[in-house]
Amino acid sequence: MISVAEAREKVLSLVAPLGSETVPLSLAAGRVLAEPVRARRTQPPFPASAMDGYAVENAAVRPGAVFEVIGEAAAGRGFGGTLGKGAAVRIFTGAPVPPGADRVIIQEDVERRGDTITLARDLDTQTYIRPAGTDFAQDDSFDPARPLRPSDIALLAAMGHGNVDVMRRPEVAIIATGDELVMPGETPGPDQIVASNNFGLKAMVDAAGGHGRILPIARDTESSLAAVFDLARGADLVITIGGASVGDHDLVARVAETRGLERAFYKVAMRPGKPLMAGRMDGAAMIGLPGNPVSSMVCGLVFVRPALRVMLGLAPDADVQREAPLAAALPANGPRAHYMRAMMEPAGLRAHERQDSALLTVLAGADALIIRPAHDRARAIGERVPYLAL
Amino acid sequence: MISVAEAREKVLSLVAPLGSETVPLSLAAGRVLAEPVRARRTQPPFPASAMDGYAVENAAVRPGAVFEVIGEAAAGRGFGGTLGKGAAVRIFTGAPVPPGADRVIIQEDVERRGDTITLARDLDTQTYIRPAGTDFAQDDSFDPARPLRPSDIALLAAMGHGNVDVMRRPEVAIIATGDELVMPGETPGPDQIVASNNFGLKAMVDAAGGHGRILPIARDTESSLAAVFDLARGADLVITIGGASVGDHDLVARVAETRGLERAFYKVAMRPGKPLMAGRMDGAAMIGLPGNPVSSMVCGLVFVRPALRVMLGLAPDADVQREAPLAAALPANGPRAHYMRAMMEPAGLRAHERQDSALLTVLAGADALIIRPAHDRARAIGERVPYLAL
Repeated sequence: MISVAEAREKVLSLVAPLGSETVPLSLAAGRVLAEPVRARRTQPPFPASAMDGYAVENAAVRPGAVFEVIGEAAAGRGFGGTLGKGAAVRIFTGAPVPPGADRVIIQEDVERRGDTITLARDLDTQTYIRPAGTDFAQDDSFDPARPLRPSDIALLAAMGHGNVDVMRRPEVAIIATGDELVMPGETPGPDQIVASNNFGLKAMVDAAGGHGRILPIARDTESSLAAVFDLARGADLVITIGGASVGDHDLVARVAETRGLERAFYKVAMRPGKPLMAGRMDGAAMIGLPGNPVSSMVCGLVFVRPALRVMLGLAPDADVQREAPLAAALPANGPRAHYMRAMMEPAGLRAHERQDSALLTVLAGADALIIRPAHDRARAIGERVPYLAL
Repeated sequence: MISVAEAREKVLSLVAPLGSETVPLSLAAGRVLAEPVRARRTQPPFPASAMDGYAVENAAVRPGAVFEVIGEAAAGRGFGGTLGKGAAVRIFTGAPVPPGADRVIIQEDVERRGDTITLARDLDTQTYIRPAGTDFAQDDSFDPARPLRPSDIALLAAMGHGNVDVMRRPEVAIIATGDELVMPGETPGPDQIVASNNFGLKAMVDAAGGHGRILPIARDTESSLAAVFDLARGADLVITIGGASVGDHDLVARVAETRGLERAFYKVAMRPGKPLMAGRMDGAAMIGLPGNPVSSMVCGLVFVRPALRVMLGLAPDADVQREAPLAAALPANGPRAHYMRAMMEPAGLRAHERQDSALLTVLAGADALIIRPAHDRARAIGERVPYLAL
């Protein structure tokens, strides 16, 4: 058996960052920038008023001073001229501050009669002007190194980008194997069950920034496996589910080997999980997951998701690996790393009492997987432990 | 001025849960179930082997006992008959345990010669059988009350659902207003800037489970606003950005009123934010956000996102409102609730030193908005404070 860390290293060595493509900004949320983006312009591009009020020369400001209003500056329509002595320009939030003015008196501090304004006795002392470049300057670089969030999209728009270069989404072919499986909506025979791992893994792949394709179920024959592997051609990553335990492992591996798989079969010291296949086949990376429902989803989080992030140029787990205190004590762990289904309570993480790897109901009800390293000692209430957020 | 809580109550009273639609399970991730789903079948549907080994009668098990192997049970292909005395069936993980057997001896505890097996001296005491219904029983109800996650999708598949009824995605028309705006990719005039709030809000709406449509920029004329409002017809929610502060508020409100808006204009005691318009117009809910970049995104999180969640039948903030300790002290807050841009560090939340509401760079670099209630007292390092996760 090898450790989770060793197995991850082997899996991640099979993949590398993919190429890029250009997408409209309106479709860029959740995508990853292919390279740092530079601002096309300075923001604000001019000194801008931060409030509604009157632009004046600061040196002339004193309580009770009188100014003549000679024009207006609105957002998008600045005042054309320059302010002379004793002049003021009516100004609105976001409008360019005209040359000659270096302060905005908020309208609450002004009494206006016709074209003259008189300043109040008590003046707010702020200038209410945002200098050009307060937010960013032309050529400033933006490189968030994570999937783009709504505020990133707003910033890229403000920087003047209608399209952005993003990492191509990894194409992932997902193959459930086994005579016991039927598709959801079909009626299973008496010895059969409904395929579920392929649907769960597609959702996980898509959420991680990939594009999952559910292929037909491969039956436990060489010809069926070969036919489905053919459908996977062109994918960046091929995931098989099942056929990786002792009983039937040989079949999937044997067919994959005829397609160039350098067989890499690991018994990984982890619960749930354990059997794992990994290699390259038909020009794609290939990961073979165990068929047990919870095992396949947990191995998806521990191996497949990090591989996708590497393909996207991201750190493997930066977004989901966290730490929290325990709301309930845990006994010492055995020789295999344990990914315990747990709930996040106000006091912290509480492991579910049923850790059987066949229970999808428990996984669906869990918020986190507590990561217990191999031989981890007993942990008390309040101790901080690492976990993967679900 | 009214409090954030009052303003939220008014906004949320404008919306109600929408109807539902049926989607294929492969497209259901991130969607919200319209009603609890019942399992079409029991899982496992039969007592199933948890390991590879031999199925036998438990009463006959003792160290060194000998059994005759009379057949095989694989996943999907059970053993047709019933076990008699002294008989064993070779069995694989997931296969139905044949009638007459009530224990699986793992293959590591067996020596096989031809068609007989001899049990080891030291036997593992577990039965390695998962009773029928260990995971769920037919008609068990599943109702996660949150957007469906990958493990939920796997569970729905296992329950036999190829399609699911989900809440319809709210259609949201997003209208940026102002003569100062150009679209990203266009070249702004000397007094203009690039529209960014509409792109950021579309990404936020989409991430919250809605479907954002960016409409053309409305200029500061009645005819332009009217033309763009016409394009918004059919939306469940219309969002306008800008035109909600003192200077030009009247124009957007006046045009909206000709379309039935019961004018509800609020000065909300919050930073950033403050001006907010809300009502119903042309059969849709309408929310008018401030035009300041950070204000519009923060008001999007505080008002728009909760409204979308109500339309989806969800609790308004359950997913993003959390609590964490402070990594740096905070001074007492003034009379307005403050949503402070902050970074999440290992020790907790640290407010950014620049809280100017025009800084998209600061918002894009933030992990959270610390929620300071109006008149909140000074807070020390380590004190737990509420925040919205970004």
